[in-house]
Amino acid sequence: MASHVRSLALALSVALVSVAASAADEKPKVPSMQEILDASPKSDWRTLDPDRTLYMQLPAGRVVIELAPTFAPQHAANIRTLAKEGYWDGLFVIRSQDNYVAQWGDAEEDAAKQRSRGSAKTKLPAEFERKAAGVPFVELPDSDGWAPEVGFSDGFPAARDPKSGTAWLAHCYGMVGAGRDVAADSSDGTSLYAVTGQSPRMLDRNITLVGRVVQGIELLSVLPRGTGPLGFYEDPKQYVPITSVKLASTVPEAERAKIELLRTDSKTFATVVESRRNRRDEWYKRPAGHIDLCNVPLPVREAK
Amino acid sequence: MASHVRSLALALSVALVSVAASAADEKPKVPSMQEILDASPKSDWRTLDPDRTLYMQLPAGRVVIELAPTFAPQHAANIRTLAKEGYWDGLFVIRSQDNYVAQWGDAEEDAAKQRSRGSAKTKLPAEFERKAAGVPFVELPDSDGWAPEVGFSDGFPAARDPKSGTAWLAHCYGMVGAGRDVAADSSDGTSLYAVTGQSPRMLDRNITLVGRVVQGIELLSVLPRGTGPLGFYEDPKQYVPITSVKLASTVPEAERAKIELLRTDSKTFATVVESRRNRRDEWYKRPAGHIDLCNVPLPVREAK
Repeated sequence: MASHVRSLALALSVALVSVAASAADEKPKVPSMQEILDASPKSDWRTLDPDRTLYMQLPAGRVVIELAPTFAPQHAANIRTLAKEGYWDGLFVIRSQDNYVAQWGDAEEDAAKQRSRGSAKTKLPAEFERKAAGVPFVELPDSDGWAPEVGFSDGFPAARDPKSGTAWLAHCYGMVGAGRDVAADSSDGTSLYAVTGQSPRMLDRNITLVGRVVQGIELLSVLPRGTGPLGFYEDPKQYVPITSVKLASTVPEAERAKIELLRTDSKTFATVVESRRNRRDEWYKRPAGHIDLCNVPLPVREAK
Repeated sequence: MASHVRSLALALSVALVSVAASAADEKPKVPSMQEILDASPKSDWRTLDPDRTLYMQLPAGRVVIELAPTFAPQHAANIRTLAKEGYWDGLFVIRSQDNYVAQWGDAEEDAAKQRSRGSAKTKLPAEFERKAAGVPFVELPDSDGWAPEVGFSDGFPAARDPKSGTAWLAHCYGMVGAGRDVAADSSDGTSLYAVTGQSPRMLDRNITLVGRVVQGIELLSVLPRGTGPLGFYEDPKQYVPITSVKLASTVPEAERAKIELLRTDSKTFATVVESRRNRRDEWYKRPAGHIDLCNVPLPVREAK
């Protein structure tokens, strides 16, 4: 009981944790998110394609990134090449701006002294959006002010505009993008960032998103904030070393992440979304009847 | 030039930093947020009322919290009493859940062994919302799906419902609330949390918000994530000690935070909001024409 007291007294919300059975007296018992997931068929889960998965090894552990070639084919291809050739090995996380992003890449300011891109391209087109035709899209019932339609495309938060017939990825927590200069086509995938705060949706369609952190975002989100402009670390001693960034397909199978992701086109996912739009567990007194794209959980579990 | 290359090549967005002059060739120069702030009259800024300001001293520094008695008068009063009597001194931050909240208070699960509330009340009403009448409110031009109207009330993100005639505070990054049990009126202000991730607006009107971190949120947002359910630290050795939580008015004036906050009912703030709704600096290729309540910056500066 003591542990119930604590978990209830201090709990704000229940995420991936079952509601304590003893607490479900007043209202009819509704399934928790964990119970919904536990009841899901195996077919509602997918594994990562090792040829579009990156492992970024930091001192504190491994960050797993799923690339999004459907939306950023040229960036994804370049990043694969860079990873295969060890471009980031020994480079650093050089920026951590509170409530915004962590960013990694070459800290060298002088282009002539920067690390070679090897056989990767040094020039890519902007991949801010694409034709919506042919893009899988499960629309969220709720809209927001940033886009006419929002939803999920093969696990990624995304948006669409029926008028222009375009689709794009959305800047939710954990999304990974390619830093660029003022010119729209100035990113080459060498400088990457992950969103570690309130979703900066104003960046949507202004920069190329290349994927999402599916495991280990907390290794980036806890990094000390840089004290320079934009959260850059002012002292190179503060840089966080990147041991390596590898394409999962180049890593021995035994060393690969054994995780599964809930398919966003599955019935279980639709049930999860509805359960989060209207929280019915007894802690909630007023279900919102709404959810923002970037508040929707994207469940990941150890492979079964 | 080298430093320009870096600040531009890696910049995602410009926050509180002027656009490098050399980069403003293509488009007409628009004032940066910093330039807007620099041009503001002194009267558009306010200082904190020391009788509604908390200083939470952590090993890494001081977190400054502004209380919101307009919305949570009884919680604010109780928290003032608790702070005056040193309730939190020597207690701990006991929870850090990624992309959600950090929480502090008494880790003791057994009510009989918990720290005494001293002369503070042990029972308070829920203060989830209040009558909108008499509440200052500057409406944001954009709406969202969580509330009929959103805006700012004396520096706090807030919402209103004209139909019910109620107003409430909104769960944006940095907001501070009072943890509760299943019963709506089970919070007494001893267990507090701060939002450190994507705004969990589904909590609005489900729990009492008591204020906002106006300085030092990054001391909470970088805390290692707890590995227990809901991000609680599993090992007491992981607890982050709270040296003290003091009401600013009980601290010698020389030791008080010398900061000013931009008034959210000022012309300058309206200009800031509009400049962020439509980013016109040349880095942005597509101004959003929209901003979410929780994306609006709430400028704080050293007192001048």
